[in-house]
Amino acid sequence: MPDSALLTDLYQLTMLQGYYEQNMEELAVFEFFVRKLPETRGYLVAAGLAQVLIYLEQLRFSSDEIEWLASTGQFKLSMLDRLKTLKFTGDVHAMPEGTVFFPNEPILRITAPLPEAQLVESRIINLLHFQTLIASKAARSVLIAPDKLLVDFGMRRAHGSEAALLAARASYLAGFTGSATVAAGMHFGIPIFGTMAHSFIQAYSSESQAFADFAKANPDNVVFLVDTYDTEAGAQKVVDLAAALHAQGIKIKGVRIDSGDLADHARKVRTILDRGGLNDATLFASGNIDEHKLAELIAEQAPIDGFGIGTRLDTSADAPYLDCAYKLQEYAGIARRKRSEGKATWPGRKQVYRNYDNGIISGDTVTVDNAPCAGQPLLQLVMQGGKTVVGQPTLVEAREYARCQLNSLPMSLRQLSNTLEYPVIISAELQVLAKTVDERNTG
Amino acid sequence: MPDSALLTDLYQLTMLQGYYEQNMEELAVFEFFVRKLPETRGYLVAAGLAQVLIYLEQLRFSSDEIEWLASTGQFKLSMLDRLKTLKFTGDVHAMPEGTVFFPNEPILRITAPLPEAQLVESRIINLLHFQTLIASKAARSVLIAPDKLLVDFGMRRAHGSEAALLAARASYLAGFTGSATVAAGMHFGIPIFGTMAHSFIQAYSSESQAFADFAKANPDNVVFLVDTYDTEAGAQKVVDLAAALHAQGIKIKGVRIDSGDLADHARKVRTILDRGGLNDATLFASGNIDEHKLAELIAEQAPIDGFGIGTRLDTSADAPYLDCAYKLQEYAGIARRKRSEGKATWPGRKQVYRNYDNGIISGDTVTVDNAPCAGQPLLQLVMQGGKTVVGQPTLVEAREYARCQLNSLPMSLRQLSNTLEYPVIISAELQVLAKTVDERNTG
Repeated sequence: MPDSALLTDLYQLTMLQGYYEQNMEELAVFEFFVRKLPETRGYLVAAGLAQVLIYLEQLRFSSDEIEWLASTGQFKLSMLDRLKTLKFTGDVHAMPEGTVFFPNEPILRITAPLPEAQLVESRIINLLHFQTLIASKAARSVLIAPDKLLVDFGMRRAHGSEAALLAARASYLAGFTGSATVAAGMHFGIPIFGTMAHSFIQAYSSESQAFADFAKANPDNVVFLVDTYDTEAGAQKVVDLAAALHAQGIKIKGVRIDSGDLADHARKVRTILDRGGLNDATLFASGNIDEHKLAELIAEQAPIDGFGIGTRLDTSADAPYLDCAYKLQEYAGIARRKRSEGKATWPGRKQVYRNYDNGIISGDTVTVDNAPCAGQPLLQLVMQGGKTVVGQPTLVEAREYARCQLNSLPMSLRQLSNTLEYPVIISAELQVLAKTVDERNTG
Repeated sequence: MPDSALLTDLYQLTMLQGYYEQNMEELAVFEFFVRKLPETRGYLVAAGLAQVLIYLEQLRFSSDEIEWLASTGQFKLSMLDRLKTLKFTGDVHAMPEGTVFFPNEPILRITAPLPEAQLVESRIINLLHFQTLIASKAARSVLIAPDKLLVDFGMRRAHGSEAALLAARASYLAGFTGSATVAAGMHFGIPIFGTMAHSFIQAYSSESQAFADFAKANPDNVVFLVDTYDTEAGAQKVVDLAAALHAQGIKIKGVRIDSGDLADHARKVRTILDRGGLNDATLFASGNIDEHKLAELIAEQAPIDGFGIGTRLDTSADAPYLDCAYKLQEYAGIARRKRSEGKATWPGRKQVYRNYDNGIISGDTVTVDNAPCAGQPLLQLVMQGGKTVVGQPTLVEAREYARCQLNSLPMSLRQLSNTLEYPVIISAELQVLAKTVDERNTG
């Protein structure tokens, strides 16, 4: 997925034109953070850093892009000359992907010459926002159903191709088993899952014939969709077919139900399969599932082994965006903040420290970077001078780290609706700094 | 934006393996439609067809992709050989982009050999769903504020890069003035807008100096963001600067407010600008705006000339997905439908006819294709034998068509909350066909 340098807001370029003209190229520090949690979230899971690092390393304006910018008549030649050779040369500190985090905690800090740090704002938010949104949504299902097979089914209603790919990645990072999106398998090595759609059954005049032909064509992946016409009748046809398939050395892995009362159908289908000797066949359900439906089905002890979770996951339907920002916190060695009503930020370059109580997280402190503070620092150097620091975790390693992170959540935060607000303390040092910055700007 | 053929669900490929093995390659007809409107929508605006046509024309499996598929061990050599030469050779009928439509009305029909028509399902839904979602959301703002400058500001919180680009396109199609996303300007020729962020002001120790330098660097695009510290004080600084800029031949185009009570600030800032002789300077507002906020500001007669509408537009926050489907309606000349509970569809290849009353749409009929019916047929042939029919509308033409379509809506549907359900009749012919199909499948 090559990124275009033009994936940015126009104001970044008009500002760059100002910065270059005034030689404002000293080091700037920007931080990305979430201001406020959506009502339906008690924590978030950091994701998207790997794509940010690739974006920053590969950031270049192509000659086509420069030519197009010139054609708009909005940019001076001196500016376009600078863009021709622009690279990202800065440092990045970040929380590792999979880290659980809370409002006002920077999860990424950029330290770079002002124009570079400014230009990348739009795409950095775009990348961190979306994967964090999806990983945080997916984690809720993972914690509700830790022993179930959970598969991302959302590509078709994800918002475009990149959303589909990155939703597959972010949900896998958060603990999903895999995705139905084939390209996510090729790009990210994510396990891919899939069997048949209703159209396959409909294209035949006989449902049984459709099952038989599918099994022959896909002998290692025999999962039948049984609800095209009548769910239980479909399940019975599967049982009736088992002996003939067995004789051909084909094993029925399971069935999928995609409509109706899933718990009720699952119970009936399970009985039909068991009576037919298909005790090993697994039961997979899909159709309008999210973490609430999942909790309901598990509470009802529906005999379902795996779930396809699509639209509501890939669009984060109950909270389709985060109130997040990427803000200038320091320029030329001086701490800054904006004070716009309702949008004031904590100034300066910061670090987040986390404390634990018997392996369970018990409170974070946001403070001035390098101020003494108890706890484990969460922001780490991941890029230096425009080069990614070697030894970044693989996706599988990040997934394992996310699993540990989710296991460190207090029980109250693991519930689907929680009343506890996790304690995030703004340190005295940081409060003093904010006051100093405000006095300077008022003066 | 090149599409990968692997942007599909795995089950499409497992089904293809079955279809090829059984020589099931006769003509199939699939249709895309929306089952039900979101609660907060009274109509939808069709969008995304242009990208679907490009996708279908360019659909190929690259040798890398074939190799990767082989490496999964899930596909037979005979199947991979077929994929190597696969192209889309079918026909497409569709409602033109910008057409207003309603539930159960197909907006796109694919007629192609079964494997081709099946494979493209996931990406066709992905493309039509998202742009239709955004165009339908954007249209609500356009109808509320037809005389205002409306600019898409949503790139950063759009779900990935493609969502950002396509949201810019879909909102422009629905009548927005333009977008802040630079790449949308280059790719689609959409007018781009943008000025400065708070970080530009913060990087200076003096707000006035920041304004002066910005104006000098961007003399043709002088819009100042005035709310970084104190909105009215910021506006006064703009007035104080006007004479000096005028002396340099630089005209102040306007100011932007991004926080606080927008109506209240707008009135105060308007007064400050007018008293300072800047009567021509326009006032632009942004920050958590959607069609409801827009309606509120217009009802309050806030003196705002233009609006940046971001997150809630690009994520369609109040309705982040549509209940839509792409379903097999006919195979080998025989009409089909699925009957899954709550998900039954109308079978066969269909046409939608629209009637008007004094230029206002008054009722649609969904019927069997080629059945006699009064009204204007909405589905048109746009691709034949895998080639796009010449003379497809440009984006600007589609935008003009969308404007006429929105103007044909009855007043009740133009409101933000409407109680009227637009009449869509399922013709007697179609009801008879559905009965025939069901009797065949039951028998």
